Amino acid sequence: MALIADLPRNEEGIATALDLLRQRLGAGRVETGQALREQHGHTTTWIRTQPPDAVIFPASTGEVQDIVRICATHRVPIVPFGTGTSLEGHVNAPAGGISLDLGAMNRILAVHPEDMDAVIEPGVTRKALNTHLRDTGLFFPVDPGADASLAGMAATRASGTNAVRYGTMKDNVLSLKAVLPSGEVVTTGARARKSSAGYDLTRLIVGSEGTLGIITELTLKLQGIPEAVSAATCSFASVAAACDAVIATIQYGVPVARIELLDALQVKAVNAYSKLSLPETPLLLLEFHGSEAGVAEQAEAFGGIAAEFGGTGFAFTTREEERNRLWQARHDAYWASLALRPGAKGISTDVCVPVSRLADCVTAAQEKTREMGFVAPVVGHVGDGNFHVLLLIDMEDPGEVARAERFVGWLNELAISMEGTCTGEHGIGQGKAPYLEAELGPAAMEVMAAIKRGIDPLNIFNPGKLRLPV
Amino acid sequence: MALIADLPRNEEGIATALDLLRQRLGAGRVETGQALREQHGHTTTWIRTQPPDAVIFPASTGEVQDIVRICATHRVPIVPFGTGTSLEGHVNAPAGGISLDLGAMNRILAVHPEDMDAVIEPGVTRKALNTHLRDTGLFFPVDPGADASLAGMAATRASGTNAVRYGTMKDNVLSLKAVLPSGEVVTTGARARKSSAGYDLTRLIVGSEGTLGIITELTLKLQGIPEAVSAATCSFASVAAACDAVIATIQYGVPVARIELLDALQVKAVNAYSKLSLPETPLLLLEFHGSEAGVAEQAEAFGGIAAEFGGTGFAFTTREEERNRLWQARHDAYWASLALRPGAKGISTDVCVPVSRLADCVTAAQEKTREMGFVAPVVGHVGDGNFHVLLLIDMEDPGEVARAERFVGWLNELAISMEGTCTGEHGIGQGKAPYLEAELGPAAMEVMAAIKRGIDPLNIFNPGKLRLPV
Repeated sequence: MALIADLPRNEEGIATALDLLRQRLGAGRVETGQALREQHGHTTTWIRTQPPDAVIFPASTGEVQDIVRICATHRVPIVPFGTGTSLEGHVNAPAGGISLDLGAMNRILAVHPEDMDAVIEPGVTRKALNTHLRDTGLFFPVDPGADASLAGMAATRASGTNAVRYGTMKDNVLSLKAVLPSGEVVTTGARARKSSAGYDLTRLIVGSEGTLGIITELTLKLQGIPEAVSAATCSFASVAAACDAVIATIQYGVPVARIELLDALQVKAVNAYSKLSLPETPLLLLEFHGSEAGVAEQAEAFGGIAAEFGGTGFAFTTREEERNRLWQARHDAYWASLALRPGAKGISTDVCVPVSRLADCVTAAQEKTREMGFVAPVVGHVGDGNFHVLLLIDMEDPGEVARAERFVGWLNELAISMEGTCTGEHGIGQGKAPYLEAELGPAAMEVMAAIKRGIDPLNIFNPGKLRLPV
Repeated sequence: MALIADLPRNEEGIATALDLLRQRLGAGRVETGQALREQHGHTTTWIRTQPPDAVIFPASTGEVQDIVRICATHRVPIVPFGTGTSLEGHVNAPAGGISLDLGAMNRILAVHPEDMDAVIEPGVTRKALNTHLRDTGLFFPVDPGADASLAGMAATRASGTNAVRYGTMKDNVLSLKAVLPSGEVVTTGARARKSSAGYDLTRLIVGSEGTLGIITELTLKLQGIPEAVSAATCSFASVAAACDAVIATIQYGVPVARIELLDALQVKAVNAYSKLSLPETPLLLLEFHGSEAGVAEQAEAFGGIAAEFGGTGFAFTTREEERNRLWQARHDAYWASLALRPGAKGISTDVCVPVSRLADCVTAAQEKTREMGFVAPVVGHVGDGNFHVLLLIDMEDPGEVARAERFVGWLNELAISMEGTCTGEHGIGQGKAPYLEAELGPAAMEVMAAIKRGIDPLNIFNPGKLRLPV
């Protein structure tokens, strides 16, 4: 596995803090079992596991504050943990310390149907929230695939298939509370829908990857469950034709809720895995939310646009069963991909470029994977210009892993050269730290470092992530 | 006028910096005429003018950098200036120094129709941008009323009547460049639609009121001009009934583009001013953007909901001339208000509360103004819970001004007690600084101060605004 270097450990501080934490919480709550620690340093990428020294499941904001104060006094790292679905090593503990698993703080504190918001503890997952909301006519839209904790999603500024309509976590967190490295609790905003009151601390903590504050409460915007949903699919001769159809659809003002691209290899994988018989060319899958009349109108508008760009096999429906059938290719994409190379691990890239550059970027990535000999299907949240190349890698082959790393670096740099970003939704963490400066430049790194130093002068919150200059 | 205290002046530094600036730019470009200085310390509120020592119109980012470096070396304040339409004293110079008028940096650098974005210099106003975009089928939606500079709008996190549909400046700035107090230029993001790359510096600078960076370039999201627009109006027996109709409309998922409330006094003012004969009860005005069929469906859906809440006189149209007639009451609201008390000045509040509390907040504000003897019509961007009480004040009567200040404070505190904010869209500036801590608490003030100290350790960028702890 790729080496992300360990950071210097403060052995004496860690030992002292563990003693004090046992006194404060009871010995049993400072968990040090090997399996639990390994699980909390778990990564879903090629980065090797860097387990913490102990795992604690705090039950309240007050406990988080006490833990932070003890760790701050003894300069011990704290790594917040939600559900561990980060793809970029966010939960690793390269300098050891405490993994703070917020999964036990999972109460839904309030739902305000009139204001269309909910107040939750950090460990609530998106599915748990939506199950709770079932009878209110409301839902929380951000859907990164995994049933992640909502605070983890906030910390990594996650998004997913419907960001083109509903935005990312930055757009859907109204305000939050977080425990600072000082042990104080900061409230970043009110429950009003908009505010011009001071620096936007909500958006500062969202995406800060646990390096500035430990989120202990979120106020989230909710959406009305649409009266009707329609789905549409259409095949295209090339990625470029599909992307042109996407651009035209959005320019035309069709309010798509989801617009996903599968490349030809991905379609082939799904055909094999799910016994489908889709044309093995690039496929767009769309979903529309609105009134009965609206979603039919929208799907038909897309159909007309798709035809202009040579789309074939256009199909659409508003019936749920039919929708699931049309979208099956997307739902099965990940497992179908893994089946292309049994035993391999899927390593996902996450670049995002201006939509006008998307076809060029996807096509270049496909050529490069072929040239480098990878099996690597592509899925994309193409309304946002974000796509994932899933490299199927034999993790036991160091040469192959190294080549994969080279590909990821090449693609990140290509996206940056196209005025894009190395990460649309997965975050920087450990894996992408080298590309952050390439993307934003030294002045941005220095501003981020100044913020980090000002808020966490001892660098105890999730050290080693983002790799800001000290 | 209310006293906002001057801050200590660095006389020696100012004199030295002015000399150096004259050497760098030419003597004529460091303008010190009384009228120009007064105009640049101009405020549109009761706060007295605090003029800068000189006004400079930089022509390029490089000039801004040079000016900042000279001012930083000699610890001289810099106050960025757009069009001077701030309502909270943002452009005042309480410690003297340089007003940096960015109006001459007004080029539109690029429009990317496929990506639906534009790259502009800071002095471009929203009307100038929309005029430029006329033939592209695109527009920039944020509309605060005044034809403000877009960088000024970004700096104050402005919004306006259509934020309920298109969001505020925080949602419509993709990325920006700003000159830091160090003289370096920071780029806060790429041109991709979304990103998880590091701290959200875009949202940090947006709303920072010129205290962290001087915006020299903005990349803005654009919207497609809707195929069709419909307008609707409806009268209600009470503010509560109107607000209930707003809540139901939004919960029902009708994608309103604008939803504005005029209270009974405001309607009365408009009837008198514009020779209309609207029922003198609370009035809602709505606008819908979409397809021809969609906007008719949306207006009708609202009509049905309004009827449930006792709405009367419901009217809607998709024809432009008719739309302007229906919305005339809103367009004339400000001037009609001033005509209620000739010679008086209008002082606007700006609280924003959760929509469920809006009726209570507006009604309490109306009762309080009556009790205090003010003539004070109300308009509201009610889809967001934001409303403005326009106090008509004789600025020559110190007792009346003092009472008005007491009212504003009372209303700010009421909104905060309702989980709202003292400012939905005008910003903190000088006028609302006392309420920022009441709203967000000491920990948030300390985080903001840490950020300010980290980025602007000499406190030379717009000192005295936000009034963060030193």
